[in-house]
This record gives sequence, C-alpha cells and structure tokens, in this order.
Amino acid sequence: MQVGMIGLGKMGYQLTLNLLDKKHDVVAYDVNTELIEKAAKDGATVVKTIERLIRNLNKPRTVWMMVPAGEITESVFQEVLSYLEEGDRLIDGGNAHYQDSLKRSEVCKDKGVFFFDCGTSGGVEGARNGACTMIGGDEQVFTEIEPIFRDLTVENGYLYAGEVGSGHFLKMVHNGIEYGMMQAIAEGFELLEKSQFNYDYEKVAKVWNNGSVIRSWLMELTENAFAKDEKLEGIKGVMHSSGEGKWTVETALDLQTPAPVITLALMMRYRSLADDTFTGKVVAALRNEFGGHAVERSEYK
Amino acid sequence: MQVGMIGLGKMGYQLTLNLLDKKHDVVAYDVNTELIEKAAKDGATVVKTIERLIRNLNKPRTVWMMVPAGEITESVFQEVLSYLEEGDRLIDGGNAHYQDSLKRSEVCKDKGVFFFDCGTSGGVEGARNGACTMIGGDEQVFTEIEPIFRDLTVENGYLYAGEVGSGHFLKMVHNGIEYGMMQAIAEGFELLEKSQFNYDYEKVAKVWNNGSVIRSWLMELTENAFAKDEKLEGIKGVMHSSGEGKWTVETALDLQTPAPVITLALMMRYRSLADDTFTGKVVAALRNEFGGHAVERSEYK
Repeated sequence: MQVGMIGLGKMGYQLTLNLLDKKHDVVAYDVNTELIEKAAKDGATVVKTIERLIRNLNKPRTVWMMVPAGEITESVFQEVLSYLEEGDRLIDGGNAHYQDSLKRSEVCKDKGVFFFDCGTSGGVEGARNGACTMIGGDEQVFTEIEPIFRDLTVENGYLYAGEVGSGHFLKMVHNGIEYGMMQAIAEGFELLEKSQFNYDYEKVAKVWNNGSVIRSWLMELTENAFAKDEKLEGIKGVMHSSGEGKWTVETALDLQTPAPVITLALMMRYRSLADDTFTGKVVAALRNEFGGHAVERSEYK
Repeated sequence: MQVGMIGLGKMGYQLTLNLLDKKHDVVAYDVNTELIEKAAKDGATVVKTIERLIRNLNKPRTVWMMVPAGEITESVFQEVLSYLEEGDRLIDGGNAHYQDSLKRSEVCKDKGVFFFDCGTSGGVEGARNGACTMIGGDEQVFTEIEPIFRDLTVENGYLYAGEVGSGHFLKMVHNGIEYGMMQAIAEGFELLEKSQFNYDYEKVAKVWNNGSVIRSWLMELTENAFAKDEKLEGIKGVMHSSGEGKWTVETALDLQTPAPVITLALMMRYRSLADDTFTGKVVAALRNEFGGHAVERSEYK
C-alpha cells in the first residue's frame, strides 16, 4: 500500500527501507535534506514539505510519524493533522506517552481522522529486518492498514492491542520490564566480577543463551558486548535513560500499583549518573556525628 | 562412557534417559525402589545400594550425584566418597552452595578424587532433551568427562567455568538473575492488569516474544501460562523460593556488592508469602497515632 513516512532518522529510515523491500509505495519526508536524498536513492518518493507529502498521498491517506518523543512529535502532529481529511489514518510509531496519544486521538476524532498509537520494539535492526509492533486504535480501520504491520514485523510480531492508547501503554510497560531485566542481568555479572573466580563473560553469556532459564535476546546482546570488549573496559558504567522507564514508574504511582523492581532499576540508572552523591555525604556525616566514624575528605574543601 | 547416576528424581531420571539416548552406559541408584525399576525398564543397569553402584563401575569411575540440596547431598556425598578411590571423578549436578562444593572438593582431594561442581539449568525438559550446564573443577580431568556434558546439553550448552566452585557459583548467580527477570516481567503484567486497557495477556506475551527487546524463554513460559489460564485465576500469587536467590543475596552481602534489584525480587517473594504483615500493622498504627488516620480493624480482635 501507499504510506507517507515522516521522519527518516535511525528508526524511520530503516522502516522505509523495510517497506520498500515489501513493495510498498513510500512517500518520505524529513527536515534533513541529506536523509531525504538518501531515501530517494533507495526508491522512496521524496518530498520537501509535510504539506506536499500529504498532497502526494491518495485518499484515504496513511501517514506514519516516526519522530522523537516530545515537542517534535507534537509540532509534527499538529502540522500533519492540519492537512489531513476525514477518513485519513495517522500512525504514531514513536515513543509517545500514552496519555498524549489519547489526547491526540481526541483531536483527530474531531476531524474524522483515525489515530493509531504504535509501539515499536526491536531496535534499529528490527526496524530494518522485522520489528515488533503493538497498536492501539479503531479495530475496523486497523484491518485496512494491517498489511503495513504484517510486512514490517517478524512473524507474529504485531498485535492489535485494543482501543487507542493501548499500543503506547504496552510499549511503555515493555520498556519498564526491559529496565528490570537489564539491571538483573547486570547485577549478576557484577557478582561474577567481584567473586573469587575468573570467568570469561562472553562464554558465560553464551552458555546462558544455550538451554538456560535466562536465555533471552538481552543475554545475546550481553554476549555480543563481551565479545567486543571482554571486561567492558572501554565503557563507563553510566546508565542513561530515555523516558519510558520513568513513565512506567509514574504510571505505577498513578495506578497505586507496586512495581518495586522496575522502579529500583530506574533509580539505579539515576544513581549511576553521579560520581558522588549528597545522600552519601549526609550518611557519612551522620556516622561521623554519632559514632566518630572517619569520613573521606572531599578534594574540593 | 560409563556413568553412575545417584538420584532418579525429577532431574536425575531425565538426565538418565538423556544419557541412555546418547548410548552412554548408566548405572543408576535411588533410595526409591519404584524409580530404580522404572530406570531398569528404560535400559539403565540398576543397583540397590550406593556401594554396589561404585563396585559396578570401571576405574576411573565417573559418578553423577543428582539429589536435593542440603543434608541429603552431604550424606550421599559422604557415603559415595567412602567407596571412591584415587583417580575417580565425582560430579555434583545438584544445586549445592558453592562454599559447600569448595569444602567437598577439599575432602575429595585428600583421597585423590576429582570433584566437579556442575550447575544444571533448563528445567526438567532441558534435562531430558538438552540442558545447560556450567562446571567447575580440574581442567585436565574435565576433558576426560567432557563427552557427558556435550551429550547432555544443547549445542554450546556447557561451559567449563574454571576452578572448583565456579560452576555452582555461576548457577547461583544465574538463578539470582532469574529472580530479577521474573519479577520485572510480573510487575509489567501487573501494570497492564491495573490499567484502563483490556489486554489479552497471552497475545501480549506472544507479540513480545516475536521481535521485541524482551523476548526470552521466560516470556515464552509466560505465554504458555496465560494460554492455559488467561488471567491466572487458578493460581495464588504466592512466590516460593528454593534457596539460590537467598544465596545470591547472601553472597552479595559477603562481597559487599550491591545487587539491589535481585535482592528486592527476593524480598517481594517473602512479602508474597504473607496475607498481612507486621510492617503493615506498625505503619497503620503510626499513621493513626500521629494523624488520626483510620486503621482497618483486624477480625481477630
């Protein structure tokens, strides 16, 4: 089918190539002209404005937004929507907050536009060769755009998750689980590293990937990482995060639902961002105050 | 090769069948006569005492202990060792604490017996059709018994992990990681269950198993569980544990190494064992004391 792709970054570009492989007709746009030219060479019809992209699509149009979460999503959404007409379908394949997707869907409804929130997992490699997608939105209209998801994903790798919002909610929770799993795996290797034994971590990850209970794609990535750098000496243990873990924890708070391990995994990421902490200073000071325990002097004073 | 198998319970029996399939000669023993008879029908040479098992094996003997962790392991170990002679090899395939394996290895060394601590993962199905094993012990002698591990495991599913103790340590940490991963997965589904959306959990687990970042054997087991019981209504949320998670946390304490998510996963298991908690009573009482907040009355008073 014909798809308008907005955003040719890491994910959007790979999705475009994937769609072109499957003989879909992609009309592509990005703010970055170089990316547009690259997509043109790969066989996409390219346009230089969002308005032209919409004009180039046959009605009812199908537009896939693949832009960074936050303000860019909102401004692109507003511009796209201003050109869309009744019956058109707008898919947000990015990592928007499900509450924002619920709001956007309401705005779309006023114009008769069908909004779909699509969580996309599997990384850049998945986007290119077979992703995992979870989609919320109108069930009937979904069947009309289903071929896109069937072709973009691995076998059994897409799910119509339910009403609008359910796709991004599911992707958010997926990422929350990912935080917990990653931290658990990492703590295990920390224990190995601190132990009296001398393990080969690549081999450990490899044997755990073959027949063990914890075999998983994340453990395969762990194996790859240790294959490149046997003690990860080239990498600092700074664990950034891009928002979905925080949203999961905020959602747990809103729902008054305990998610302690996912929450702690996020907190440990925050802890990793600091070399020293005020918590540490306060506890050290208190031990000194009541027990005369030595403190380590900061070099700044 | 010839293997003496002691213990024909859930795991030992399946390992025996697996070894017989691969044309190994298994001499088998269990305290339970019924299990001995079953193994005999399957083609094992069976014996009625540990002493006879040892006598039936050619030197240097290879004995695989597969009995429950704790006192049984110790008493079987002592009895087996009393009959073993210099050059024999004793494999403990059970879930012993690595510190106990270190001690047992020392005792074996006095008699010239080679002790191997072998962590076995993959569950009952793995034991039958291909497990994952991680083995510590003498590296040279390991190569002589390596065919057993090659045949019992899936491809790339065994690892000579290093000196004695390293096998059971690795298995212990594997189980600690498992605790964290399971709790993270479970918390994710809890959030879905408390959400405003109406997910089909079997389908969710299925889509997450196809192309997502969190695809894993544990997620496949999650899919199976929801396929049998879509809301797990037949199962109480009581999370028992069998010791390896506790050992992992104790080891983290001994090594003064933070493993917060694994630790919290274990604590949440303990929390799940109680309907009510004393912690809860104390906090409720304190809120009542300082703020006049209502307490829920226990029915016992």
